[in-house]
Amino acid sequence: MLITLSTDFGYTDPFVGIMKGVIYSINPQAKIVDLTHGIAPQSVLTGALMLRHSVNYFPRGTIHVGVVDPGVGSARKPLLIEANDSFFIGPDNGIWSLALAERNLSRVIDLSNRDYHLKPTSATFHGRDIFAPVAAHLSLGITAEEFGESLPTYSRIDLPRIQANGQEIIGEIVYIDGFGNLFTNIGDHDLKDWARDQIRIVLRDIEIRGVSANYAAVAGGAYAALLNSWGLLEIAANKSNAQQQSGAKVGDKVQVFIPDNAMGS
Amino acid sequence: MLITLSTDFGYTDPFVGIMKGVIYSINPQAKIVDLTHGIAPQSVLTGALMLRHSVNYFPRGTIHVGVVDPGVGSARKPLLIEANDSFFIGPDNGIWSLALAERNLSRVIDLSNRDYHLKPTSATFHGRDIFAPVAAHLSLGITAEEFGESLPTYSRIDLPRIQANGQEIIGEIVYIDGFGNLFTNIGDHDLKDWARDQIRIVLRDIEIRGVSANYAAVAGGAYAALLNSWGLLEIAANKSNAQQQSGAKVGDKVQVFIPDNAMGS
Amino acid sequence: MLITLSTDFGYTDPFVGIMKGVIYSINPQAKIVDLTHGIAPQSVLTGALMLRHSVNYFPRGTIHVGVVDPGVGSARKPLLIEANDSFFIGPDNGIWSLALAERNLSRVIDLSNRDYHLKPTSATFHGRDIFAPVAAHLSLGITAEEFGESLPTYSRIDLPRIQANGQEIIGEIVYIDGFGNLFTNIGDHDLKDWARDQIRIVLRDIEIRGVSANYAAVAGGAYAALLNSWGLLEIAANKSNAQQQSGAKVGDKVQVFIPDNAMGS
Repeated sequence: MLITLSTDFGYTDPFVGIMKGVIYSINPQAKIVDLTHGIAPQSVLTGALMLRHSVNYFPRGTIHVGVVDPGVGSARKPLLIEANDSFFIGPDNGIWSLALAERNLSRVIDLSNRDYHLKPTSATFHGRDIFAPVAAHLSLGITAEEFGESLPTYSRIDLPRIQANGQEIIGEIVYIDGFGNLFTNIGDHDLKDWARDQIRIVLRDIEIRGVSANYAAVAGGAYAALLNSWGLLEIAANKSNAQQQSGAKVGDKVQVFIPDNAMGS
Repeated sequence: MLITLSTDFGYTDPFVGIMKGVIYSINPQAKIVDLTHGIAPQSVLTGALMLRHSVNYFPRGTIHVGVVDPGVGSARKPLLIEANDSFFIGPDNGIWSLALAERNLSRVIDLSNRDYHLKPTSATFHGRDIFAPVAAHLSLGITAEEFGESLPTYSRIDLPRIQANGQEIIGEIVYIDGFGNLFTNIGDHDLKDWARDQIRIVLRDIEIRGVSANYAAVAGGAYAALLNSWGLLEIAANKSNAQQQSGAKVGDKVQVFIPDNAMGS
Repeated sequence: MLITLSTDFGYTDPFVGIMKGVIYSINPQAKIVDLTHGIAPQSVLTGALMLRHSVNYFPRGTIHVGVVDPGVGSARKPLLIEANDSFFIGPDNGIWSLALAERNLSRVIDLSNRDYHLKPTSATFHGRDIFAPVAAHLSLGITAEEFGESLPTYSRIDLPRIQANGQEIIGEIVYIDGFGNLFTNIGDHDLKDWARDQIRIVLRDIEIRGVSANYAAVAGGAYAALLNSWGLLEIAANKSNAQQQSGAKVGDKVQVFIPDNAMGS
């Protein structure tokens, strides 16, 4: 059974490696996959967005561990959530809430049974001491209920919502990838039946006309708007880095509108 | 069967993890290896050089996936190349051409059979939607011809060539590794029968006499020239970072010559 | 049998991937785990500290490969050390000495048998040419003695020691993690029976009173002192980056004392 690991631990420390040691010590047959360790430190919402667009690509039955956990060691509960026959482990701070939004919840377990924690249990590294050993025991067939008490629900967080007014949408940048591509919170369906080649997209002093089919459809260095692999409207610069070129940052407003004379049939 | 992944996706985004999810969803027994995800964004030639010096260390039969793909979604074809019983998957932009230069080509397939693509197929992430699923199906034993039409050839790119004039060679820096070591395009054989301890290497205002056996052969901080693990002449600084110390960059000329009075027997 | 890899190679080059290719070419069944590749370049002592707090989390029998090797190709020997039924491979520069400090040494082998090295053997990449193939052959059941001559001992290095004088301890920062948390060389036991909520911790112009149970116990941005997951006194800033906030660096002195009126029973 596959175990994925997603954290904000980055790549300079041995923390992820330590978690793998814990898992293999309990289940030497475990198959561990790094989903991402590049979530910005303590950025629960960004992590939740990244996981939302990732977990559906993994097989049913996968055990997903997500650790972005500024509240580690405090009153926030460590959780195991089961939904659509897959498992989601992490702190109760919303890290899994976007990924779970469209899934059917089977159970939420407070990981209160200390029999499955490493001892001594630190107050600063539950990835090592709680989440990794629970994932490993779960992969061995221990049932979810063994790990603690059921809870009625878990904490949810959400992305900022777009404002849609007639022929105009105001959204914002919610993610910037390693290429400097600017992901907005505006989805394909938000653009209704508007002709994709007629809409106008405005970010700061940048105005783009029409949605491109791909990056190479515009000149090198030119800005393009695309519907990207996460189904989101994205502003990119062909063979360049739109973030560096524009100075844009997460939270910047993006305006989309369709001119009067270009309304759909 | 081993599947290696090499990309310019870096380590901040979940894109590589998503590709692994796609592969495991198709072949849960797949064995995936990260070769590198540190190729500079959109640097096809640098990626090709890195892969050239990497793939020969993998077993025959390995499936290599290489995604540096600024033309994703455009007319450039997605390819599967078979050579010496190993497989090379990626866009037709030359990313595999240096690794394949000394191999016997068996077939080149345009990955046109959409039965093996993820649907919907995005225009911005063929790593997820085409290359990963094709690699996974190939690892399950689907034959190469199933994935599309045969092509007569594929796109090639090449490193800048050295200029050799009698007792002088002019090459250039083609790669700088994470230690700041400066790799040139000058190989061991380019230095002919010249006495290795007598040649002079010049980069900017740095002049080095003789090729060292190893980094520690010179004083801490001093520059050394070595024939490195890729068989290339390298300029390094012992226990230091030659790139930072010298300000050198890819493309800088490196001159090598052998003095008159030091010509080989 | 598990093989872990720890290096200072970072994540931009294909060097780690190449080592994996070498291992799989020799033992296709090998199970390889990246422990860390984020050790600062050529920082043997930092690497030794990271490994000390990592290897105990792996199963008995694991083969650990550690490559921080500024002396590669020089007279320093390549070693295989067996201790408590686990294996430690790397250069003889102390990289494994902190991890091994509390283990029972079974044998130290100079990896002098070139039958198990890749040929040609470079002078700059023993990770590829010696350490990876030895680890792979060891995982296939080749006995330690096959790889070379026994040595009586190996090189040791150590962290700077604290100074303890009555009610005062002077230690220093020995590690800074990716969150900017400042790890000192002061352990839990160094704090004796002093009341943890009464001790005072001083770093530069920062004075902290009492050890916190977790990060969230102080206000956002405030400094906290904790006993962290490595058992070390750590100075952190809740939901922030203590290193960036304070400008502290490795080697900075940290003073701990217990006021007269707060001495333990």
